[in-house]
Amino acid sequence: MKVILATDLIGVNTAKGEHNRDFLDKYGILTINMISSPGAGKTTLLEVIMKALKDKYNFGVIEGDLYTSRDARRLLDHARAVVQINTCGICHLNAEMVARALEGMPLDSLDIIIIENVGNLVCPAAFYLGETCKMAVLSVPEGSDKPAKYPELFKEARTVVINKSDLLPYTDFDLPGCIKELREINPEAEIFVVSARTGEGVENLLGWLEERVKRVSPVD
Amino acid sequence: MKVILATDLIGVNTAKGEHNRDFLDKYGILTINMISSPGAGKTTLLEVIMKALKDKYNFGVIEGDLYTSRDARRLLDHARAVVQINTCGICHLNAEMVARALEGMPLDSLDIIIIENVGNLVCPAAFYLGETCKMAVLSVPEGSDKPAKYPELFKEARTVVINKSDLLPYTDFDLPGCIKELREINPEAEIFVVSARTGEGVENLLGWLEERVKRVSPVD
Repeated sequence: MKVILATDLIGVNTAKGEHNRDFLDKYGILTINMISSPGAGKTTLLEVIMKALKDKYNFGVIEGDLYTSRDARRLLDHARAVVQINTCGICHLNAEMVARALEGMPLDSLDIIIIENVGNLVCPAAFYLGETCKMAVLSVPEGSDKPAKYPELFKEARTVVINKSDLLPYTDFDLPGCIKELREINPEAEIFVVSARTGEGVENLLGWLEERVKRVSPVD
Repeated sequence: MKVILATDLIGVNTAKGEHNRDFLDKYGILTINMISSPGAGKTTLLEVIMKALKDKYNFGVIEGDLYTSRDARRLLDHARAVVQINTCGICHLNAEMVARALEGMPLDSLDIIIIENVGNLVCPAAFYLGETCKMAVLSVPEGSDKPAKYPELFKEARTVVINKSDLLPYTDFDLPGCIKELREINPEAEIFVVSARTGEGVENLLGWLEERVKRVSPVD
């Protein structure tokens, strides 16, 4: 039997996240914590966003994965810096991991950092990383009942992206019903319906992102 | 600061899981721990399986969800007994929760218990519940890279169901590549490609299930 001193782990993480926040604020970097189920299309969405905006803004990416670096490699062409965090089986990123990733990034040349969290709709929502805001990504084939079934994330997200809208004709996804439930859970969230694959609806999301980055930029 | 005595939590869970296993063995009940991402189609697959086999076998269902009982209600018509476990935010079922659920079930009249775990591709794989075997469900729109990215579950699963095959024409899913990677991770797993929605491929999965239930049945 081991005896350990258990302090408030979530509290320790939050404090560390606030430290990250202060640090990122000094550089005026918009930081987005992107959370979804496995396979909701976070990496493809990121590729599309960065491809469209990389000539205007410098992107950094912190890529959370259990083991592989496949997703990070997909993003190298579009970002100024990509740091891979392999959690070795841990189901979420925490603020300490992000702090270490930030040490390796050229912060004074970045405008936006996107943190692609481990694919998991439950655990990552509980760990504040120092982000400006959370972006929840829900994909159409997962089903329109997911916000009600996994409310923590959808309550906290500043924006919800409903991705893979190109699959709407082939699934039972109830788009008005889903948006209605999202509004009940989180009346403030901005909701975008997009297909990262076809580009449908992405323009509005890019507009939101540009507006956000201007708001945190130190030169404004 | 709280001081707690931390024993080996995974070890304690495994011991409790073995207790469940012994208990279920006495009744000759095939018990399947079904694990997937949110929205991979576990509940729909369960409906299809039970609808096809409910006249031959008596099903019990243990339904794990963070908060809601939506899925459990969908299954009431087809099962002899459905027990809902709301984990209240906890990202997986554990053996203690299952032990309590079993107390409420008419075990001497059941042939098969299916445990539908919380939708999460990471955490549930680490918690043995006393199941005869794990069934991993991967849905086509999640992408063919998921077994390599989330290997714990796919290593442990006795069977892998690739669901939503009706969406193959509308996605980039690389079916031969996915099966090849699955075979590398887990050469023993039986793999079924199905669409719970259209019924395609379900027959083979039902055959496997019938063969398994005969193997554990006390009367054989």
